[in-house]
Amino acid sequence: MTIQTVSTNKSHGGVQGVYRHASAETKTDMTFSVYVPPHADGAKLPVVWYLSGLTCTHANVTEKGEFRRACAELGLIFVAPDTSPRGADVPSDANNAYDFGLGAGFYVDATQEPFAKNYRMWSYVTDELPKLVAANFPVDAKRQSVMGHSMGGHGALTVALRNPHRYRAASAFAPIVAPSQVPWGTKALGGYLGPNKDAWRAHDTVALIEDGAKYSGFLVDYGDADNFLTEQLRPELLQAACSKANIPLTLRRQPGYDHSYYFISTFMSDHLHWHAARLTA
Amino acid sequence: MTIQTVSTNKSHGGVQGVYRHASAETKTDMTFSVYVPPHADGAKLPVVWYLSGLTCTHANVTEKGEFRRACAELGLIFVAPDTSPRGADVPSDANNAYDFGLGAGFYVDATQEPFAKNYRMWSYVTDELPKLVAANFPVDAKRQSVMGHSMGGHGALTVALRNPHRYRAASAFAPIVAPSQVPWGTKALGGYLGPNKDAWRAHDTVALIEDGAKYSGFLVDYGDADNFLTEQLRPELLQAACSKANIPLTLRRQPGYDHSYYFISTFMSDHLHWHAARLTA
Repeated sequence: MTIQTVSTNKSHGGVQGVYRHASAETKTDMTFSVYVPPHADGAKLPVVWYLSGLTCTHANVTEKGEFRRACAELGLIFVAPDTSPRGADVPSDANNAYDFGLGAGFYVDATQEPFAKNYRMWSYVTDELPKLVAANFPVDAKRQSVMGHSMGGHGALTVALRNPHRYRAASAFAPIVAPSQVPWGTKALGGYLGPNKDAWRAHDTVALIEDGAKYSGFLVDYGDADNFLTEQLRPELLQAACSKANIPLTLRRQPGYDHSYYFISTFMSDHLHWHAARLTA
Repeated sequence: MTIQTVSTNKSHGGVQGVYRHASAETKTDMTFSVYVPPHADGAKLPVVWYLSGLTCTHANVTEKGEFRRACAELGLIFVAPDTSPRGADVPSDANNAYDFGLGAGFYVDATQEPFAKNYRMWSYVTDELPKLVAANFPVDAKRQSVMGHSMGGHGALTVALRNPHRYRAASAFAPIVAPSQVPWGTKALGGYLGPNKDAWRAHDTVALIEDGAKYSGFLVDYGDADNFLTEQLRPELLQAACSKANIPLTLRRQPGYDHSYYFISTFMSDHLHWHAARLTA
């Protein structure tokens, strides 16, 4: 479990690093970023996982997320994985669309060919990368949480619902909450998991809740000027499911905000405080 | 004086915009960004000018500068111009080097051919763009200040020293302070202004101070892990000049920080508070 350092930069008193490793899950080199805040020698820190959206790499949130000041104040490690395997040998969308294949792993382990070999982002973000990070950074593995944006919000909510004891907090910016019911999701889940929709339910937040998954509560922000709101995101479906299942949901409609990092960076500090309150309790 | 809107995004309660206009000074289209914080209807707000460094456009600080939260709290408009004229017809470095020509205007009005026609960044940032911004945004032109990074720190300090009554505050991240004495500066000033070094003194912070320019005080941060520190930046020359001229200088050596936006974003809030204290006094 060795990692190669791509870059390190001091920032907000800590170190923002970018690292690369050979992934056993994806059979490719994978790049990820880790921010380690200032801390006492020997301290073990809680870690927040950030799962990114369609077309993104680790770099988008690392450069534009405005998370370091709050992470430094709150003592949080912040890890940002890539969104898919990468490389010339990795199969992708037949038409090079942005919403499937490269940059669009949807945080599932694909069962369909030709994707099954490389597209193992579920196991990558929930198993391989956490072990790698724990082995190389001062992480307290008992204090983890997860957040994400759009496709990564889908990832964060499903990861939390299926591992409620490992992730003490979960939040999302403009998440896809019911992929089985929207165009992005049906294309992705169909392509990676095949036509049997029963297999999709383990990767659909609303379906997981309908099927009995429980969680201590979610914080979800979305902008009412988000172009993807009514067709792809559909937060009202999450609200209905959480309400019926008695899962506490703090759902905030942010007037005038869109789907961009200008939106995410505005509310990042709120989310990190939400996580910190649950990670340090 | 019309401007074209390239994009607007709500962020931190205000609006981050990117705009384009046909510049009379550079004879090219120029792109710049403006952040307008939340404010009362009819209010006129102070404006902070941010001048960027080599290779940058408006976009670097706009995406990575982490200035919006503080600008929103403090009620500051934040404007980021480009660093040179752009376009296929604009002459540049003969060898396409990064430190002259495109992305490297050095905030001077060139007198040498073939640069004199387009490279008029001094007049652009001190005259044309301020008028354009004042005509299109809720600016209180009596309350302006200027900051910058590296080449843009050079720009900010020279602009302030030559217009001390217009710019109420000035600060810089890792500025070039004595271009006449360092490789980046001698190449640029020689190329744009010609071999007569007398003409360079009006664009050299240390020389301006030696020649009697006064200012109310500067805030300057630099990182001691900055690769350009000893050869190009040389903050000790600024310290000596300010000391001799009794210009108050808050010069901070930041341990472990480099030349990147990871450094700038760390101390951006400090700088904006410095500016706000002087703009709202």
